Amino acid sequence: MTSPEAFHGWLGHAPDSAQGKLKWESFTPKPFAPTDIDIKVSHCGICGTDIHTLRSGWGPTHYPVCVGHEIVGHVVRIGSSVTRISIGERIGVGAQAGSCLKDDCEECSSGMENHCAKGFVGTYNGRYPDGNWSFGGYADYVRVPSHFAVKIPGSIPSADAAPMLCGGITVYAPLKKNGAGPGKRVGIVGVGGLGHFGVLFAKALGCDKVVAISRSRSKEKDSISMGADTYIATSEDKNWAKIHQRSLDLIVSTVSSPDMPLSGYLRLLRTNGQFIQVGAPEDKLPAFSAGALIGKGCKIGGSQIGSPREIEEMLRFAADKKVKPWVQQRRMGDVNQAVVDMEAGKARYRYVLVNDDFEDHAKL
Amino acid sequence: MTSPEAFHGWLGHAPDSAQGKLKWESFTPKPFAPTDIDIKVSHCGICGTDIHTLRSGWGPTHYPVCVGHEIVGHVVRIGSSVTRISIGERIGVGAQAGSCLKDDCEECSSGMENHCAKGFVGTYNGRYPDGNWSFGGYADYVRVPSHFAVKIPGSIPSADAAPMLCGGITVYAPLKKNGAGPGKRVGIVGVGGLGHFGVLFAKALGCDKVVAISRSRSKEKDSISMGADTYIATSEDKNWAKIHQRSLDLIVSTVSSPDMPLSGYLRLLRTNGQFIQVGAPEDKLPAFSAGALIGKGCKIGGSQIGSPREIEEMLRFAADKKVKPWVQQRRMGDVNQAVVDMEAGKARYRYVLVNDDFEDHAKL
Repeated sequence: MTSPEAFHGWLGHAPDSAQGKLKWESFTPKPFAPTDIDIKVSHCGICGTDIHTLRSGWGPTHYPVCVGHEIVGHVVRIGSSVTRISIGERIGVGAQAGSCLKDDCEECSSGMENHCAKGFVGTYNGRYPDGNWSFGGYADYVRVPSHFAVKIPGSIPSADAAPMLCGGITVYAPLKKNGAGPGKRVGIVGVGGLGHFGVLFAKALGCDKVVAISRSRSKEKDSISMGADTYIATSEDKNWAKIHQRSLDLIVSTVSSPDMPLSGYLRLLRTNGQFIQVGAPEDKLPAFSAGALIGKGCKIGGSQIGSPREIEEMLRFAADKKVKPWVQQRRMGDVNQAVVDMEAGKARYRYVLVNDDFEDHAKL
Repeated sequence: MTSPEAFHGWLGHAPDSAQGKLKWESFTPKPFAPTDIDIKVSHCGICGTDIHTLRSGWGPTHYPVCVGHEIVGHVVRIGSSVTRISIGERIGVGAQAGSCLKDDCEECSSGMENHCAKGFVGTYNGRYPDGNWSFGGYADYVRVPSHFAVKIPGSIPSADAAPMLCGGITVYAPLKKNGAGPGKRVGIVGVGGLGHFGVLFAKALGCDKVVAISRSRSKEKDSISMGADTYIATSEDKNWAKIHQRSLDLIVSTVSSPDMPLSGYLRLLRTNGQFIQVGAPEDKLPAFSAGALIGKGCKIGGSQIGSPREIEEMLRFAADKKVKPWVQQRRMGDVNQAVVDMEAGKARYRYVLVNDDFEDHAKL
């Protein structure tokens, strides 16, 4: 078992590539370093960031790009200095494939690689220090520095583990860090790929109350099935902010629309409450009054994915608590339709691409 | 020793009263309750809120008003149910004179009276549940519920203790709560009454580095004398945000101008850094990008004065560490000029009114 010289993946060549124009082509990964591993991809979740990147939504993308950063597969090659990982092992890779990893980096030396200021390399559309670009998981193989590969507990199916690696950790990390658990009442804004993980994890963490907050009522039934105790539809429930004022200790907001009713969300917070934004709007957040924070001693924060250590902790937690994400499996060969469906908001609640027969993909 | 039927104070009657038009007149305090105490005022600091209130800057003020909520004096009367305080004792009162104090109030029952949602009564221009208005410390006597009176350590002169009761606690509480101390680098935005306490307390708390941040360099020398290690003049230092990027764990902002360079301040924060606003702008905060919080896992928060317990803790700390505020004493009779000077930014750094001979005030 080893990896080929050239890898293959569904490449985007222009901002319109998210509209059904990804092409199955070969690409050359970074030169194999002693710290690298190669993974034969079995599963890869479709994350909103994939689509933002394909269409150059957050800035110019370097094309051709192979997106996908919720990757699960088996290790087929390990570098000479890799000791932690063995050939054949099932492994996952999230949204980060590199950081400076230097001893004098405050972030890397203290387990916060996800905040490394100098050397953060995204799993795709990222640039390694040697100038090579990173390629993601809509592919047959992925090559990454082993530091960013995480082991997956045996009890979690690959299709469930994949979307946890970015979507899951993005909400698990701020929930955990900000004390979600017994005695706490937690709100999740947005019931999509990230938000559904928010409800599942907040419930599994034992929060006293989990409130799903969305615009319409369309996802109420699903949210309750996921474990939400209450559902707020901000465009349908009259006076929702007043009715539910001061009811939540922590809100994790997964929406990325800059026209969110932020002042209303802040009204939901109790004294010392916190509002953590994890969805990244392309515009600025709506302006708000400092009084909304001062009077109750509240905070607005942000959170960005998680470190490898945090991802492993989340996976162990998910295994222990039997957290079961709502996943829809799609064939890797059907990626173009799956991306279009994802963009149309059809996912309930995360698409995961599954590789079966690589050779056939180009023909599909 | 007891208190008279009518008290006397420098009353404001209209929004122009901060322009030298306060009048020494009698007023009737709330009816004396078994939980109340009367204090013969010896000292009262001049706080920015006094001026905002006199001119109805944060909303309509109820005139006549007697402002002043950095009050020190001696107890001259105690209610029948007051056991904690004795006649003759030196005592202080800050910005809060009432809260619901009910067992089922989450805030009051857990030592966060300053965030009580249902019964917060300001020391002046506040309304008690029985409909009576509160009157502050630009006066000969003050009547307050004893719960909000704090004892002052013997080693702190009254003129120093007075401005700690609002200005001091407003910055001490967020510094303490957010971990200011050894290993932490702290910035204080604005070097005025509050900001100068910020520098003093951050230094006394043992922070690794204290950075004073102001618009011009005019307060650099004073800031260094107070204990600041570095001084940033945002309107004079070119590229200050870039030069000092990622250098601070915590920033406490005491300025209330809504045109503050907020995005620049956020750039100064390190990973997991926090920016706490304690000055309350009359307008909204400048809009900022969520990315400024997400990438570094930062937070923007607010903080409002402190609870009686926190004020007592601060006073003990100030006594232990010999924190010496920069105070200028003014005669209570010169209050009109002192308020005008304060508004003109002349205080270095806190004016404290001192009562000497009450009978003479009306003649001054």
